[in-house]
Amino acid sequence: MNDGTTPDKASLIVMSGDMDKVMGAFIIANGAAAFDMKVTMFFTFWGLKAIQKGNLTGKSVMGKMMGCMNRGGVEAIGPSRLNMGGMGRWMFKKMMKKHNVTPLATLVKQAQEQGVRLVACEMSCNVMEIDKSDFIDGVEMGGVATFISEAMDSKFSLFI
Amino acid sequence: MNDGTTPDKASLIVMSGDMDKVMGAFIIANGAAAFDMKVTMFFTFWGLKAIQKGNLTGKSVMGKMMGCMNRGGVEAIGPSRLNMGGMGRWMFKKMMKKHNVTPLATLVKQAQEQGVRLVACEMSCNVMEIDKSDFIDGVEMGGVATFISEAMDSKFSLFI
Amino acid sequence: MNDGTTPDKASLIVMSGDMDKVMGAFIIANGAAAFDMKVTMFFTFWGLKAIQKGNLTGKSVMGKMMGCMNRGGVEAIGPSRLNMGGMGRWMFKKMMKKHNVTPLATLVKQAQEQGVRLVACEMSCNVMEIDKSDFIDGVEMGGVATFISEAMDSKFSLFI
Repeated sequence: MNDGTTPDKASLIVMSGDMDKVMGAFIIANGAAAFDMKVTMFFTFWGLKAIQKGNLTGKSVMGKMMGCMNRGGVEAIGPSRLNMGGMGRWMFKKMMKKHNVTPLATLVKQAQEQGVRLVACEMSCNVMEIDKSDFIDGVEMGGVATFISEAMDSKFSLFI
Repeated sequence: MNDGTTPDKASLIVMSGDMDKVMGAFIIANGAAAFDMKVTMFFTFWGLKAIQKGNLTGKSVMGKMMGCMNRGGVEAIGPSRLNMGGMGRWMFKKMMKKHNVTPLATLVKQAQEQGVRLVACEMSCNVMEIDKSDFIDGVEMGGVATFISEAMDSKFSLFI
Repeated sequence: MNDGTTPDKASLIVMSGDMDKVMGAFIIANGAAAFDMKVTMFFTFWGLKAIQKGNLTGKSVMGKMMGCMNRGGVEAIGPSRLNMGGMGRWMFKKMMKKHNVTPLATLVKQAQEQGVRLVACEMSCNVMEIDKSDFIDGVEMGGVATFISEAMDSKFSLFI
């Protein structure tokens, strides 16, 4: 691609689990991929929800407590501002549907189809007791070195 | 400018509507402009408040509900940490005034005077039912491609 | 270092005071330093907690009120999502200890040992009435120009 030259890169760290920020991350990633950029998304802590299969259950009691507060899967994510007892997410989804905004699950699928690399932070997975098998297919495991080496030759890097 | 070469660029995405973060964004933008950089600020979701004229009213019931929770205009923005029933904003403003910190409205004006480009995210405006006429003069409308193409040749890009 | 060439740079602005984000910032900074990058961390507002000695007391009543809500020192920092009456921090720390995650205080020390430059935002210190003597040894004071000039020739810059 790009006449024999290496493609431009972009890298995103997603630590937030808020729906609006996670959607923003995927919209930017898909936009950059549409510009033929090679995009790496590095998910840490609450951001891991976005690439989980659906139900997160830690094995220990504490893992379960965190799983309880932090149920995985893109359907469980609320927006950062309006999330009052779930009302926010319901309303936000309604408005996005009304205005034909692509849902998060579709954005994730599009990212994978466009070759966006999805990397889960190993340390966060350890702390939150999430297993590789909890993630959707195609997710890689990686450490901070994975992010740094991508960011070092990226045209832009964002912390979301 | 810059002896015939193109100026260095910086690009900022502002999704947050918290006063401290929005102020930080404008302080960085104005600082970069003072270095003769060509700065683009791309406002999405809650960040759109910072460049609105004052009163945001969506046309549908849901738009009104979101407008109610998200009243526009720089005077309505509270800091992310201290906003307890409005007390935080009051105290924060008092302290900033006492210490001669430039108010947000002035920072926005300075940014425009220094040629900082203010772009409102079209998709967010659709979802939140905000119209171009709701923004202060000089605000452009743009999509994610607008941001990507700026970020691709920016010296630095930040997600705020 | 680097065979006579100047080292690659990375710059981070830390505005958040949330434990998970501050830890993320230091993990990235230490990771980049391990890649022989010259890293500058620029702390503003709530992020200043991470590099304070422990107890923050503003001199005026308002400074004291803010100090009360924003007690300094790395031990006082809670994670952004789970902080319910202190429970979150306790649980988070327990899980991190169980999984052998380096504590924040150690990450800060490692950063200093690796030559990461820690800069406190002067304007934020003024507003929050924090003095240079409130910071751990080795912290520099700086303005937005300090950040811009580093970010301009950094391989990546992040707003955290």
